[in-house]
Amino acid sequence: MSTGPVVTEAVVTPIAFPDTPLLNSSGVHEPWALRTIVEVRTGDGLVGLGETYGDAAHLELVRAAAPALAGLDPFDLNGLTRRVAGVLGRVDAPDAHGLTGDSSPQKTLARVVSAFEVAFLDLQGRATGRPLYALLGGKVRDAVPYSAYLFYKWGAHPGAEPDEYGEALDPDGIVAQARKLVDQYGFGSIKLKGGVFPPEEEIAAIRALREAFPDHPLRLDPNTAWTVDTSIKVAEQTDGLLEYLEDPTPTIPGMAQVAARARMPLATNMCVVSFADIPEALALGAVGVILSDHHYWGGLSASQRLAGICETYGIGLSMHSNSHLGISLAAMTHLAAATPNLAYACDTHTPWQLGVDVVEPGALRFSGGAVPVPDSPGLGVELDRDALARMHEDYLRCGIRKRDDTGYMKRIQPDYERRLPRW
Amino acid sequence: MSTGPVVTEAVVTPIAFPDTPLLNSSGVHEPWALRTIVEVRTGDGLVGLGETYGDAAHLELVRAAAPALAGLDPFDLNGLTRRVAGVLGRVDAPDAHGLTGDSSPQKTLARVVSAFEVAFLDLQGRATGRPLYALLGGKVRDAVPYSAYLFYKWGAHPGAEPDEYGEALDPDGIVAQARKLVDQYGFGSIKLKGGVFPPEEEIAAIRALREAFPDHPLRLDPNTAWTVDTSIKVAEQTDGLLEYLEDPTPTIPGMAQVAARARMPLATNMCVVSFADIPEALALGAVGVILSDHHYWGGLSASQRLAGICETYGIGLSMHSNSHLGISLAAMTHLAAATPNLAYACDTHTPWQLGVDVVEPGALRFSGGAVPVPDSPGLGVELDRDALARMHEDYLRCGIRKRDDTGYMKRIQPDYERRLPRW
Repeated sequence: MSTGPVVTEAVVTPIAFPDTPLLNSSGVHEPWALRTIVEVRTGDGLVGLGETYGDAAHLELVRAAAPALAGLDPFDLNGLTRRVAGVLGRVDAPDAHGLTGDSSPQKTLARVVSAFEVAFLDLQGRATGRPLYALLGGKVRDAVPYSAYLFYKWGAHPGAEPDEYGEALDPDGIVAQARKLVDQYGFGSIKLKGGVFPPEEEIAAIRALREAFPDHPLRLDPNTAWTVDTSIKVAEQTDGLLEYLEDPTPTIPGMAQVAARARMPLATNMCVVSFADIPEALALGAVGVILSDHHYWGGLSASQRLAGICETYGIGLSMHSNSHLGISLAAMTHLAAATPNLAYACDTHTPWQLGVDVVEPGALRFSGGAVPVPDSPGLGVELDRDALARMHEDYLRCGIRKRDDTGYMKRIQPDYERRLPRW
Repeated sequence: MSTGPVVTEAVVTPIAFPDTPLLNSSGVHEPWALRTIVEVRTGDGLVGLGETYGDAAHLELVRAAAPALAGLDPFDLNGLTRRVAGVLGRVDAPDAHGLTGDSSPQKTLARVVSAFEVAFLDLQGRATGRPLYALLGGKVRDAVPYSAYLFYKWGAHPGAEPDEYGEALDPDGIVAQARKLVDQYGFGSIKLKGGVFPPEEEIAAIRALREAFPDHPLRLDPNTAWTVDTSIKVAEQTDGLLEYLEDPTPTIPGMAQVAARARMPLATNMCVVSFADIPEALALGAVGVILSDHHYWGGLSASQRLAGICETYGIGLSMHSNSHLGISLAAMTHLAAATPNLAYACDTHTPWQLGVDVVEPGALRFSGGAVPVPDSPGLGVELDRDALARMHEDYLRCGIRKRDDTGYMKRIQPDYERRLPRW
């Protein structure tokens, strides 16, 4: 099928950008975060943009798939999936972070398709002069609320200058970080990445946040650092304080045991991470909120399919974030703008980019904790080609080829051990 | 939001077309079938088409909603739902046929939105020069297979001339009808509308079909004419003969009891007819196949949402049909073309139109039992304005304002009584 200019090439560029020493249940962010930028070109000179993970195994698959897209109509999303599936076959590549459960060929396919799918949709918007949200059903909100994403962190990477956020290793540090983010971005919701310190310290941080921000919905996400019993205890001790408790413990059955005792909804982006996980999770009542993430669910249309399931089953819908740049922020914003039941403030790592981006400035901004939805065609962002070249150089130079929070931590604290659950 | 010319008006025209005396579990088709044609116009002179039920209560709601659409961008499907919901409020209108279970405000809204949604998508296609399937994700098949839809029938309405299909009241008549439909259209699947005669007679018809068409998948649909026990007996006696058994008995729990004992999948367009029905039906294992129908599921995008749920839960997806014309056939064809897991041949009443249509001839045709998917913009069909005017006159003249198969049957056979289940 072809109803207009077709894809002539897909250019795949790995890049790196400076990251801060953010702590989590698996270790600490390295000095560089990796991403892969996808540019899909059509015969009439249009370019559609996509952004995805930068880990080597994933990059290799994205690169392998790219040539197979030539000749496709950018409206042919089914054809895109078919072509990529044809290249990948039964390839089964785990995600580099190990945070989305067991790998599968379906999950691998979804992760590779996603970057191109966003670029195809960007092209559809550019070709028709429509903002991407129009192609997703029309915007139901003019601005998409995001949450302040708090991290325990060191003041600096070992041997480096302190970053602008400074150290946050206790409740005071966390409250100060929240204050800075709320002041600067206007965020109306707050999420704390936990799983770093013993639960009682993180509960104290939540209490301090509640005191400092009496009206902000709060979330806590220990990335499965707790046993079922610990999770139930934390749920009791944070009763009334949390909008939702995110991935306290591993596995769907584990979450179901916690959910049966917790009064707040449990949210997940670790045990329900593909369509195959949904039936069991919903049958067991394991989760009340699913955090969508178009990067691994298979794209924006797949994320809307997930939204339809959540609506049908009365499950809340929120949005997950990894370290990302402006192309992803634009995609997340269009998706949330056009998805009525995506009613929670979305997560974003935008503040942790420290102002570095691969898109030209100005198209996306925060106002009152929300990103006004761009009305220009497609994603509404343009690639900053100088930045792309510079960030690709950084990629080549930085030496990191795979995110490894645990390995980095072990190099700094040799006795560190990743254990999930830890408490 | 507006990113192009907006809707200026939506014109709603009720029409009637001659129908044959097709028998079912509720009575017999009247001499006229009713439909409502929707034309949505935009400021740049484009017209998008929709087709829906013609029953008075529904027509009134469609007419009430139409003026509220002015100013909408045809890409704003979320806005369409919001505007129609604003007009309907909590209106709860049962469908005239009583074949889709209890009514609800959500089901009423879905039914009214649908006609406009198809017209909006038709406009999107016309505005962008893309066939509708491109806006639904791209076609995965070049032609959409339909099934031969067999009906027990009289040779003629009382006092009227026989129609071209003649009488079919026993296995021989059914096989002859199937032969005629298969010869003329090339259908590769066969569906028998049952629930008319005692089950043993309908089983005999299925056996006769199997003998006459050894390789055609067969379906039997008694429209909930049977008790659970009768359904289980029929399932045993048709074991190995049926691709699926459709709505043998009423209610989700009833279907679940049959499903637990039947070896073929049970299909439904009567107990799972809205998103609200899905969780219970899937939890109980009541159905193996859901028959989508964009006319009451809320449109083509809602039907794709349903498709996503079916895929996620491993439930088969087929398509239901009521008496319809070419606008609906085009919409059904684009939807099926762009929905990978809609893998069963779809139902259609096209042969029962007897050649009458509201669209210009030529755009849609059957070849080998399938409709080649139109590649022209939007639905790919054009309104035949002379036919529309004539069929509107027929509507005004025919006197029928609500489908009433039971009432018509009672006028002919005064002792007739609608009973579901009957056997």
